[in-house]
Amino acid sequence: MGGDLAPAATVEGALRAHRERGLDVLLVGDEPRLKAELSRLGAGPGELRVHHASQQIAMGDHPGQAIRRKKDSSLRVCFDLCKSGQAAGMVSAGNSGAVLAGGVLVLGRLEGVERPCIGGSLPTIGGAGRAVLVDMGANVQCKPLHLVQFALMGEVYARRILGIQKPRVGVLANGEEEGKGTDLTRATAAALRKPGSGVNFGGYCEGKDVFGGEFDVVVTDGFTGNVLLKAGEGAVWAFAQLLKRQIAGSLRATAGALLLKTALEQVRRRVDYEEVGGAPLLGIGGVGLIAHGRSSARAILNTLSSAEAFAAARLSPDLAAAAGRARSLAAEG
Amino acid sequence: MGGDLAPAATVEGALRAHRERGLDVLLVGDEPRLKAELSRLGAGPGELRVHHASQQIAMGDHPGQAIRRKKDSSLRVCFDLCKSGQAAGMVSAGNSGAVLAGGVLVLGRLEGVERPCIGGSLPTIGGAGRAVLVDMGANVQCKPLHLVQFALMGEVYARRILGIQKPRVGVLANGEEEGKGTDLTRATAAALRKPGSGVNFGGYCEGKDVFGGEFDVVVTDGFTGNVLLKAGEGAVWAFAQLLKRQIAGSLRATAGALLLKTALEQVRRRVDYEEVGGAPLLGIGGVGLIAHGRSSARAILNTLSSAEAFAAARLSPDLAAAAGRARSLAAEG
Repeated sequence: MGGDLAPAATVEGALRAHRERGLDVLLVGDEPRLKAELSRLGAGPGELRVHHASQQIAMGDHPGQAIRRKKDSSLRVCFDLCKSGQAAGMVSAGNSGAVLAGGVLVLGRLEGVERPCIGGSLPTIGGAGRAVLVDMGANVQCKPLHLVQFALMGEVYARRILGIQKPRVGVLANGEEEGKGTDLTRATAAALRKPGSGVNFGGYCEGKDVFGGEFDVVVTDGFTGNVLLKAGEGAVWAFAQLLKRQIAGSLRATAGALLLKTALEQVRRRVDYEEVGGAPLLGIGGVGLIAHGRSSARAILNTLSSAEAFAAARLSPDLAAAAGRARSLAAEG
Repeated sequence: MGGDLAPAATVEGALRAHRERGLDVLLVGDEPRLKAELSRLGAGPGELRVHHASQQIAMGDHPGQAIRRKKDSSLRVCFDLCKSGQAAGMVSAGNSGAVLAGGVLVLGRLEGVERPCIGGSLPTIGGAGRAVLVDMGANVQCKPLHLVQFALMGEVYARRILGIQKPRVGVLANGEEEGKGTDLTRATAAALRKPGSGVNFGGYCEGKDVFGGEFDVVVTDGFTGNVLLKAGEGAVWAFAQLLKRQIAGSLRATAGALLLKTALEQVRRRVDYEEVGGAPLLGIGGVGLIAHGRSSARAILNTLSSAEAFAAARLSPDLAAAAGRARSLAAEG
């Protein structure tokens, strides 16, 4: 029920995931509305199952309180279904704080995990074409242990889900030299640099290098991660606008504008969140993915595919091992 | 003597500033090399004065130590000339930490200023077409007082130099809602929201909104400010690369590639650091501007013009007043 275009886009994305990719999707939410959407889309009776939930968590709700109090909200019920084993994972385009809270409160943290985080994924020009950004926004104020855990859990994501054999890990900072950064980034880098970390550590990663592909996993606190991700989006949007104006103002507008529009559209597809397939919660006792708030049917489809990949990969043992290894690296001082 | 393309680009930029804009520029550095550059460029005898300095501060030097010990470095001598009144301001494309240290150690801080900062300038798609980013990288770990001072000094920069009558000020955060952010951003926003601040405060500014023009001054610590600025640069660069590949791969390549190249070049000019005119140190007892490390002659020319504008504007009384006002806002709790 969550997301700017829900439930229409969500139901359509779920139906396409079932029809085009054979996923077994259970819709959770207001049954009459969901069934109306299904029949509007020409779904056969019983083609997708619907599990009724009478409440909804709004964007303005306090995440933790909402999860605790709205026991029959679509979001809470999704996590309950995961907990009881009736679902292998869940996807939501709603209140992302509440998705995080639901993951932690209902499914719990994996053993040894201090703070679960959100694993973002960025398009890159070189390297593997995608890089993992941890944390994307869950934890705004962090200690070195948290960042070391994000790094090692992000490494598991990059290796097991994105298929990058030996992911290169970097700590986001304001320069490449070791003396740059804050107490937090220096302590994190010192821990990751130890041979026992088992990671392919590349040192500090600057903001401009994030999209180059030199690093496969970029580690930062959720405040900076969120700023980075949105700044990248905003800068590209502004640049594309300027480019469109430039072309529109030129005498060669007709052919050029069309050409550029096509090219922009194709590039946009490549870098758009629609194609990325959502952001996983890393460190909870199950599979939960946050889809973009403005998710289209296509974005929901791709996020459901990601959820299936995460469920099939059974990352929990690796993530718990990563958290434990991070704990000893950060503790040794 | 500092900068990737120095001294050739620096001398050329200085000569153009003299010839095209009538600026009285004094070159400071290795006299034989500077004179050789001048004669290579066909400068008449005495067209630009040269002040010899026998040492240089390298990019890897420790900023504070280098300023203290290399008393005859071009950078240190520039500040000494400002201090003695022989120069109205200085520009360097060298070690930016050393420029900051030189400003603080030689020219001193303005009364009431806790920490001088670097005022960046970003291109925006709407609004005034430019926004001030404070701090751009000087202070990686900050307290609310520092950020409130950056905000009020940035407001003076936007109003007096960029000519924005009532600049809208925002605090960079991971969401628009008041509950978002960190202890630091919340305390800063609380201080700026007070009627006594005298600023047109717009609340939190998200990373994606920085390039939209809704805010004229965006306040953050130097770590996040640096990450934001470089992420914007990096994302635009990556996007432009993808776009070029897309066009090059299309059948309509010939006309399209040329058209796009022209448009990209024109947009690049508009957003490029070359045109921005350097980043001023705000809160020191004089005028100092940091030019981009890869400054071309054109970038140096524009930074020298900025330096003249700052010197002519005599901002020190306004900046000191801003620092004092910030002090009472942050102290009231």
